[in-house]
Amino acid sequence: MIKKPNRLTLVEQVALQMEELIERGHWKIGVKIPSEKELMQTFDVSRNTLREAIRALVHAGLLKSKQGKGTIVQSTSVLSVALNKHMEKSGLLDTLEVRLALEQKAAALAAKRRTEDELDELEKCIDLGVEALNKDNMDQFIQADISFHKTILIMADNRLLYDLYDYMTDSIYESISNILSVDSLASNETRIHKELLEAIRNQDSRKAEAYVNEYITTLKHRVKQLEEEKDV
Amino acid sequence: MIKKPNRLTLVEQVALQMEELIERGHWKIGVKIPSEKELMQTFDVSRNTLREAIRALVHAGLLKSKQGKGTIVQSTSVLSVALNKHMEKSGLLDTLEVRLALEQKAAALAAKRRTEDELDELEKCIDLGVEALNKDNMDQFIQADISFHKTILIMADNRLLYDLYDYMTDSIYESISNILSVDSLASNETRIHKELLEAIRNQDSRKAEAYVNEYITTLKHRVKQLEEEKDV
Repeated sequence: MIKKPNRLTLVEQVALQMEELIERGHWKIGVKIPSEKELMQTFDVSRNTLREAIRALVHAGLLKSKQGKGTIVQSTSVLSVALNKHMEKSGLLDTLEVRLALEQKAAALAAKRRTEDELDELEKCIDLGVEALNKDNMDQFIQADISFHKTILIMADNRLLYDLYDYMTDSIYESISNILSVDSLASNETRIHKELLEAIRNQDSRKAEAYVNEYITTLKHRVKQLEEEKDV
Repeated sequence: MIKKPNRLTLVEQVALQMEELIERGHWKIGVKIPSEKELMQTFDVSRNTLREAIRALVHAGLLKSKQGKGTIVQSTSVLSVALNKHMEKSGLLDTLEVRLALEQKAAALAAKRRTEDELDELEKCIDLGVEALNKDNMDQFIQADISFHKTILIMADNRLLYDLYDYMTDSIYESISNILSVDSLASNETRIHKELLEAIRNQDSRKAEAYVNEYITTLKHRVKQLEEEKDV
């Protein structure tokens, strides 16, 4: 087969390569990227070309230039940035409904595809959460909660589903962490987590979906309540 | 409250404004954007600034520069471009599972939130599909099919859910249109569409979800079969 000549501009080629370094985690979030001088050598391009490539990634939201502080990695994925911008416009209730859609499907698939190791992992997350509640350590509880839900997404074995959920999660937790900590939702959640684990262990997709529904519906009602209180 | 000074660079400001013109449909897909001269006047910026802003949008996938043909609008949304890149990496089966997740939730919400006008609209889409099948007009059938599913997403009244589904749909249909046309799936689909409409009319969320599941599971099996035949 005859290969088409590469029609990408030099700037575009450098930008794509930097995007890959970021997506693969070679350049990590919050860390400064190498100096202009170093990058000009790495990519063998002029200062102008390099700067323009960097500005394209700043526009995409992957990099952030801070005056006097250099250029920092701000996000690992263009999809994540775009999704979060969209979520901001949509509001928390709409976002929770989409999360419910993804997580219900994940629970149903996890029930079909789970391995023994993954079931153990899921149990560990629950134990960590219980331990955190006993110590009244809300940060640890939320970390254990995040791990629990991500483990289910891993068990579902669908990369696109995992990524969409993952990109949506951080900003959701920012919004709901104060809700989880102010009322009795946390201990109720532990009960549902345990029942969800058993449903997945028993390969009962329908029950697994129902527990996810119960968990997020409770959350949605609490968010609605709080929004109504704000309006009063 | 004291407003922070605008820290965006001039390039960034122009790029964001052009992005909005595209997202809002003022600049339409497939159409050439105005000339450099005109845009330099509109935004009151230099040629270099304008060109750099355009290149940022080319990198984001919203615009495409064609040699000798000017710059064309290629996509209306950064989220759409990013999502489709991700879908390409993920493969059709994973993508169908995510579509199922979104569409099941949409059907359940539609059953709760549907209006009489929307039910009429949904019925019209089915009639158009039947008419198309009778005329053996596969293009019209697929158009009616797309309208049917998008109408359900509209009835669900969740913008984020709608947009994610919408951005995923075009490339899915590209992949499955040959499957729909080669076998008896199309007439089976019409039956499920009718039953789905009745479930939504009766506000039966559970049944509505089940019909979506039936429809997409059939599709998934067909895709799997075709992939296995390819491997033989």
